[in-house]
Amino acid sequence: MAREISLFVYLEKKRALVERALAASVPKATTRPETLHQAMRYSLLGGGKRLRPILVLCAAEAVGGGKTGVTARAMPAACAVEMLHTCSLIHDDLPCMDDDDFRHRRPAAHRMFGEAVALLAGDALLTRAFEIVAAIKPAPRYSTSVMLREMAQSVGSRRLIGGQVADLEAKARSTATGEIRFIHSRKTAEMISLALRLGAMTANATPAQLRTLTEFGSSLGLTYQVIDDILDITQASDRLGKTAGKDTKSGKATYPAVFGMEEAKKEAARLTRKALACADQLGERGFRLKQIAARLLQRES
Amino acid sequence: MAREISLFVYLEKKRALVERALAASVPKATTRPETLHQAMRYSLLGGGKRLRPILVLCAAEAVGGGKTGVTARAMPAACAVEMLHTCSLIHDDLPCMDDDDFRHRRPAAHRMFGEAVALLAGDALLTRAFEIVAAIKPAPRYSTSVMLREMAQSVGSRRLIGGQVADLEAKARSTATGEIRFIHSRKTAEMISLALRLGAMTANATPAQLRTLTEFGSSLGLTYQVIDDILDITQASDRLGKTAGKDTKSGKATYPAVFGMEEAKKEAARLTRKALACADQLGERGFRLKQIAARLLQRES
Repeated sequence: MAREISLFVYLEKKRALVERALAASVPKATTRPETLHQAMRYSLLGGGKRLRPILVLCAAEAVGGGKTGVTARAMPAACAVEMLHTCSLIHDDLPCMDDDDFRHRRPAAHRMFGEAVALLAGDALLTRAFEIVAAIKPAPRYSTSVMLREMAQSVGSRRLIGGQVADLEAKARSTATGEIRFIHSRKTAEMISLALRLGAMTANATPAQLRTLTEFGSSLGLTYQVIDDILDITQASDRLGKTAGKDTKSGKATYPAVFGMEEAKKEAARLTRKALACADQLGERGFRLKQIAARLLQRES
Repeated sequence: MAREISLFVYLEKKRALVERALAASVPKATTRPETLHQAMRYSLLGGGKRLRPILVLCAAEAVGGGKTGVTARAMPAACAVEMLHTCSLIHDDLPCMDDDDFRHRRPAAHRMFGEAVALLAGDALLTRAFEIVAAIKPAPRYSTSVMLREMAQSVGSRRLIGGQVADLEAKARSTATGEIRFIHSRKTAEMISLALRLGAMTANATPAQLRTLTEFGSSLGLTYQVIDDILDITQASDRLGKTAGKDTKSGKATYPAVFGMEEAKKEAARLTRKALACADQLGERGFRLKQIAARLLQRES
């Protein structure tokens, strides 16, 4: 991929590829039971930046770039990661969780299909993600089971889901500074790291490359969350495409709430520098990851 | 396993083995976040007949019986199947689904831990099930990915989860006789068949054995559901360990409701005969499966 293509064009190209693959990765809306498949497609294909699947593809390129078929081989993992993410969004938005009525500028799944179907659509997407990864052709260094275990551990009770529970509970009590790191590293950074690791595995990364990408992922993921917290306060709902100011209203444990806005901004800048330094270690082929990290610090929605 | 041991003793022995394996298969209750792991353990280790994991072990014995290590090799699949089942029970019991306050004679998970933690405990058990199967040593005829895909397909939107959605929707309209078969084959028979197939795969079943067990499983599973529907009407909550009469009250699509009680009983007997005929094809080593099928027709809770 030539450097001459601007990041914007590059991301749009990848996003289009991801959209097409996602649309083909779940049963048609006419498959029985129709409402379930409609709900799965509504949530999965309802837009969003597709950051995680694009990171899967970028990591594969950063490792195996130049070789033919790198993107195609990474695509199932990209779809699986987006399905995991979508499942967590659907479940997060439910009334018993964050109770959010909007997602990506549209009514949340439970507002469209009812809570029960939304809940089950999330379960089905989680299951489908595992099914897709189970069908991936192994790379020389990484068997299909290794990729599956990687994914299951990232999602499981000690990491992503554990972070969601900690996040829910943090509302009820004053949050310690260590606690917020526990939550964010699990709730957000975990999925970003998983995306990078899985992508790298499909391209047969060396152990050193995998370590670098993991470190890059956790810095990038934390940055992403800190900025999300900041935007929740500074931006209007219209711009975000979801309900703004919710974190503050619900007394959520956010960086700005715990450390103050100035410190939060400094933290985001510090983490971004760390991520950029990791991306540098990947050499020339890591420049898209570096561009993405740099861009995330400036995002406004 | 000698025929001399009564079915009761045999089932108790297997149940004890399963209980021990399940207790070791999820993080300790002291693992952070504690409430999540407490909820997972509360639901997973809260009793029940353990029919599905025992069927995993029985199928493995029916195929590979006599050989050492057959039970141990089948145990991870047994635990995984029970986790999938527990996830579906936790989610089914939620207020937005069947809204049931009791399960196995105890408060449902969401009554103990709140809806959000119950929902996430279900998600975590689903995820853990895949993680466990991803770590299974492949059998000569069945790779780990084959077992994983088998499991994901059974749980997915076309089968188990699809059946749950169809079940929810059947409430709202008059249920056709074909519809109820669609629901039950997916909602109940699917998991029973999966249990038998996974167990058989860990013991390296021949394709013919796998076919027979699948047919046995779908007959047995349908029998199980028809009897469940009958018991919901004829038995008190106390005996069932869950709220009785709920299906009728909520206008659910049940066999007795659609076909009448007498027809439902005849259907159960017919399906049991079919299941017993399949078990016969497995020969001498299938006798425990045959005993279990025969027992299910007489169960009262």
